[in-house]
Amino acid sequence: MNPLTSTASALLTDLYQLTMLQGYYEAGMTDTAVFELFVRKLPPGRNFFVAAGLEQAIAFIEDLHFAPSELEWVAQSGLFGAGFAQRLERFRFSGDVHAMPEGTVFFPNEPILRVTAPLPEAQLLESRVLNILHYETLVASKAARAVLVAGGKGLIDFGLRRAHGAEAGLLAARASFLVGFDGSATTLAGPVFGIPVFGTMAHSFVQAHDDEAAAFETFARAFPKNAVLLIDTYDTVAGARKVVALARRLRSRGIEVRGVRLDSGDLAALAREVREVLDAGGLERAIIFASGNLDEYRVEALARAPIDSFGVGTSLVTSSDAPYLDAVYKLQEYAGRPRRKRSAGKATWPGRKQVYREVAADGTIARDVVTLETDARPGEALLVPVMRAGRRVEKAPGLDAIRAHARRELDRLPPRLRTLGDAPPPYHVEIAPPLAALAAVVDRATAGGETRESA
Amino acid sequence: MNPLTSTASALLTDLYQLTMLQGYYEAGMTDTAVFELFVRKLPPGRNFFVAAGLEQAIAFIEDLHFAPSELEWVAQSGLFGAGFAQRLERFRFSGDVHAMPEGTVFFPNEPILRVTAPLPEAQLLESRVLNILHYETLVASKAARAVLVAGGKGLIDFGLRRAHGAEAGLLAARASFLVGFDGSATTLAGPVFGIPVFGTMAHSFVQAHDDEAAAFETFARAFPKNAVLLIDTYDTVAGARKVVALARRLRSRGIEVRGVRLDSGDLAALAREVREVLDAGGLERAIIFASGNLDEYRVEALARAPIDSFGVGTSLVTSSDAPYLDAVYKLQEYAGRPRRKRSAGKATWPGRKQVYREVAADGTIARDVVTLETDARPGEALLVPVMRAGRRVEKAPGLDAIRAHARRELDRLPPRLRTLGDAPPPYHVEIAPPLAALAAVVDRATAGGETRESA
Repeated sequence: MNPLTSTASALLTDLYQLTMLQGYYEAGMTDTAVFELFVRKLPPGRNFFVAAGLEQAIAFIEDLHFAPSELEWVAQSGLFGAGFAQRLERFRFSGDVHAMPEGTVFFPNEPILRVTAPLPEAQLLESRVLNILHYETLVASKAARAVLVAGGKGLIDFGLRRAHGAEAGLLAARASFLVGFDGSATTLAGPVFGIPVFGTMAHSFVQAHDDEAAAFETFARAFPKNAVLLIDTYDTVAGARKVVALARRLRSRGIEVRGVRLDSGDLAALAREVREVLDAGGLERAIIFASGNLDEYRVEALARAPIDSFGVGTSLVTSSDAPYLDAVYKLQEYAGRPRRKRSAGKATWPGRKQVYREVAADGTIARDVVTLETDARPGEALLVPVMRAGRRVEKAPGLDAIRAHARRELDRLPPRLRTLGDAPPPYHVEIAPPLAALAAVVDRATAGGETRESA
Repeated sequence: MNPLTSTASALLTDLYQLTMLQGYYEAGMTDTAVFELFVRKLPPGRNFFVAAGLEQAIAFIEDLHFAPSELEWVAQSGLFGAGFAQRLERFRFSGDVHAMPEGTVFFPNEPILRVTAPLPEAQLLESRVLNILHYETLVASKAARAVLVAGGKGLIDFGLRRAHGAEAGLLAARASFLVGFDGSATTLAGPVFGIPVFGTMAHSFVQAHDDEAAAFETFARAFPKNAVLLIDTYDTVAGARKVVALARRLRSRGIEVRGVRLDSGDLAALAREVREVLDAGGLERAIIFASGNLDEYRVEALARAPIDSFGVGTSLVTSSDAPYLDAVYKLQEYAGRPRRKRSAGKATWPGRKQVYREVAADGTIARDVVTLETDARPGEALLVPVMRAGRRVEKAPGLDAIRAHARRELDRLPPRLRTLGDAPPPYHVEIAPPLAALAAVVDRATAGGETRESA
């Protein structure tokens, strides 16, 4: 197998999913299970999450099967009992999935995905569905913060090189675009997702030329309408002057310099100086692009500088201030009976749940209620059916529709949640009385794990 | 294209690599370029790096080409000039690569990879080679810290679910294994890399049963020699007592419980209590496995507890305390002339370089010298040829050989670098006089970017 292309394998899962499957099959435990995926808590300084990755998760679930080479490995690994590989050969997901649409704002302890399926099927999804939804949600939640403070300026994902592997690079482009980034430098995001891709030049391009002005001219001639010239390799303001001189010279040949990029130094001060040089040189329409260790805090600090667009890279794709979320996928019900984990510090709410959102008179979101699915309430029900009997319920929404939904979601955030720091009080998520009551019943029933619930 | 399998695409690159390529081709700039990949600085609290990912980088470089569907996208994208796609159709890497072998300890400003090739070829490697080497080096450098403090106890990668995408999950298994982890829970790491895979059960397995003891029995019967039972779902010590009772009952049927896993609570105290319960119950040989938000600091704190193996997950695969390294790939020479970037805070050392390592009398490493390739010195030359004229120089070393090399490298670390905190003084990396002199020459030659070096 080629490690760079085999990551769609059914074996991209924790081994314990497979050992549990063998246990379930041998014990005949194939009744209906309900698992829910949620995030336990907000990282410090964060006020909300944005759900993302559902489209990739559904594609994975629909396609999940064991290929012949994978079955052969299972059979020959020495890790499993006789007959397990044959049983896996028939594996397909036949269950239902409910989820929050991508782009939906959510909060701790709110399920964003609920899987209802025969126990082995629902169990096997865990590792990869978490892997997908965790990462895209991580990046979307981070990217949304930059969108909120950028004041409408352009934002481009620049993170591929330091993303954690190939898929992270590609999915970061998608997750940031769906919450309002304008595009990505990752070329493959164009053909795969239809995301606008942007690219200028690196310092190496300037350095490979014997002088900077020659580099600018080579590039402008190659891209007569689109050249954005990187001017900080030696001296940023001197670079801007060279751009002005070049643009004058090339204009008569139909070549227009589109703009410049700054990648180091005091970006606010340099942007002002460069803007003056460009304007004085007749390049009022040339844009100024800024990059270099930017994150949402720097974007906010630079929002009033004469910068048209920001390239945000490493901090975005690694979510460097909070490089993971406490996302989990937990059994909430099996064979019609609610289940609850009580491990120290990791207790969960049992049963099939729904999240209802209430909106204030001013249109901002006011309160969420997490309750049992059977406890219908006013407000918007955030979990909607997305798969039934193993197939997707409706055609995947396009990224444009997801972006529009995310835009509405961000627009409905109350002002205190739109800031970059902690926003006391946190958004109010209420555990509804029927859910709390059920948890108490389950606790009594499984106290010490010794007694059974009298269902 | 399927976004989950297309990450081996030549288009998984920053768009600016392609725009620069068009510029280079149009200007006829195809002379030999030298790029080097290095890390600018250590993250806080870190004392060294471990090089990893070279095997995947070489595989990428050897295979790099544009498939028909990718060429079609290039041609129809509207982003490039006429003829560019045809030019890319012939693209293959024909150059040389020098690198530090995987498992080598290294320090800031030391090149770990040097590419010597026609400028467009060397340029195009940047995004994906960085993406691969950055991530595996990040994880290997983090994993090595746990290896150094684990006191020989077992270490297993548990991180797939919160790794950043599929490839990160898979490559984290490899990067941690090559520095001394014992294996991974990521099943695919078995067939792809030959890495030992480990798996027990999740809380869901326990919860799906009506009581805990029944869950343990189901699992032990399914894995009569290998069952490791998760005992913290309700009450850890009570869980251990159930394991003892079960093991007594099943022993006569040839079923041996291999061990138990603790995943929450005060792991040191619980491990001691559980060890007593197991020993008193005749399970002296049963192992205790610990997991749950572990990192190298927790592993060090638990190294004296009666725990046999640790599962380390999220903190490892996201390198959560330092989720990225300041890794860069920089042009150092073009057409026989050294090049240097002077951007504020991002200056580089010009020219083709080699790193020499000096070893102290006690066998620990003492000092590295970074100098020009032409400046031969005593000590070990760390960069060795790995590709020549586009093909790998010799067969890839197996992971066992890489592990043995990494083991020797970690054994040679001086004691102060083996601790988890900052270790003053940092390891001494000297910039040799010929290199410093060359930098001064290049600076004078390109002052203001206006004048040319009189080569």
